[in-house]
Amino acid sequence: MSGLILHEFPLSGNCYKIRLTAAHVGIELERRSYDISKGETRTPEFLRDVSPTGRIPVLQDGDRFLTESNAICYYLANGSKLIPDGHFDQADMLRWLFWEQYSHEPNIATLRFWLRYVGIDSLTEAQRIQLTGKRENGTAALALMDQHLDSRKWFVGDQFSLADICLFAYTHVADEADFDLEAYPDIIRWMERIMLMPEHVGLED
Amino acid sequence: MSGLILHEFPLSGNCYKIRLTAAHVGIELERRSYDISKGETRTPEFLRDVSPTGRIPVLQDGDRFLTESNAICYYLANGSKLIPDGHFDQADMLRWLFWEQYSHEPNIATLRFWLRYVGIDSLTEAQRIQLTGKRENGTAALALMDQHLDSRKWFVGDQFSLADICLFAYTHVADEADFDLEAYPDIIRWMERIMLMPEHVGLED
Repeated sequence: MSGLILHEFPLSGNCYKIRLTAAHVGIELERRSYDISKGETRTPEFLRDVSPTGRIPVLQDGDRFLTESNAICYYLANGSKLIPDGHFDQADMLRWLFWEQYSHEPNIATLRFWLRYVGIDSLTEAQRIQLTGKRENGTAALALMDQHLDSRKWFVGDQFSLADICLFAYTHVADEADFDLEAYPDIIRWMERIMLMPEHVGLED
Repeated sequence: MSGLILHEFPLSGNCYKIRLTAAHVGIELERRSYDISKGETRTPEFLRDVSPTGRIPVLQDGDRFLTESNAICYYLANGSKLIPDGHFDQADMLRWLFWEQYSHEPNIATLRFWLRYVGIDSLTEAQRIQLTGKRENGTAALALMDQHLDSRKWFVGDQFSLADICLFAYTHVADEADFDLEAYPDIIRWMERIMLMPEHVGLED
């Protein structure tokens, strides 16, 4: 697999998880960066040539384009050791990927974006009224992860998988959304295990 | 694959898509129904024995439990003709499953639940203020589907796949959330193709 182009906003966890997956499976990605705060993913050229919805990340493979961060990670990881053996564990891994997009990212990543990039004073009323719910749901998500890791090293079975990568991306920057990660000691130990792996790359690498 | 138990709220599209997948691959499911409006998924027994978060659907396979509707569908469909050949098409199918949970279900399914089951007069202020955004996002989701189907019979490649099943579940009841499906003729034709398949089962079957 070569010649892949990642269209991305580098500080996005959804983009980072793709680079982290690529590093673990040894795939080189050509990176093309866009500054979403400057509208670079809303230009007519971008909407026409890369992503009609203006959403990133997008993985380009020749003349085919793939969206949805976790689907892109799966594409890179398919057939590698990041996908567990056995139909149940494969589905269980996907379960964490769906859970990440439904119960984790819309709370923790959205709060990080609102607080760090938009700024609390610039939020709309509809965003402001959701702060409490997203804080509660994000806290519940971290608590669920911490409890799951209480008796396990990794999220699925007893091996590092794509589930760990996709959950790591926004969890390790949850402090930027004002979540106190020190309150979740099993998450801390799990993150340390990931960061010590020889294939690991950081968000800003 | 036998002896599977689906813990469900039958009118939920997330539960229905699992039954529809099972029908297409010829798997029998034992169905156990819970009325979420009566708190039947919040009892101590349910939280202890089935789902610590109280969320359904849950698929029970012996002493293992699987959550997240699209992961459950994938479990049932893995190895069947519902999963396309080729790594790109497999990832593209997952792309639609992630998109369904991120951009479709939180808008169309949530509006359906709020308007049909909770009732507009019983919404909280935080829910009420999201009505406009969810209406806009749900409309955009249907428009994107309609446009995608403009030149295609199915969502991925040229064959019926799990992507069609998972998208059908809440799309075909979008009128219950006050979306006008007649405005999307390609969606209508796609739904008719699905409903005419010999394996098809309805939401209330």
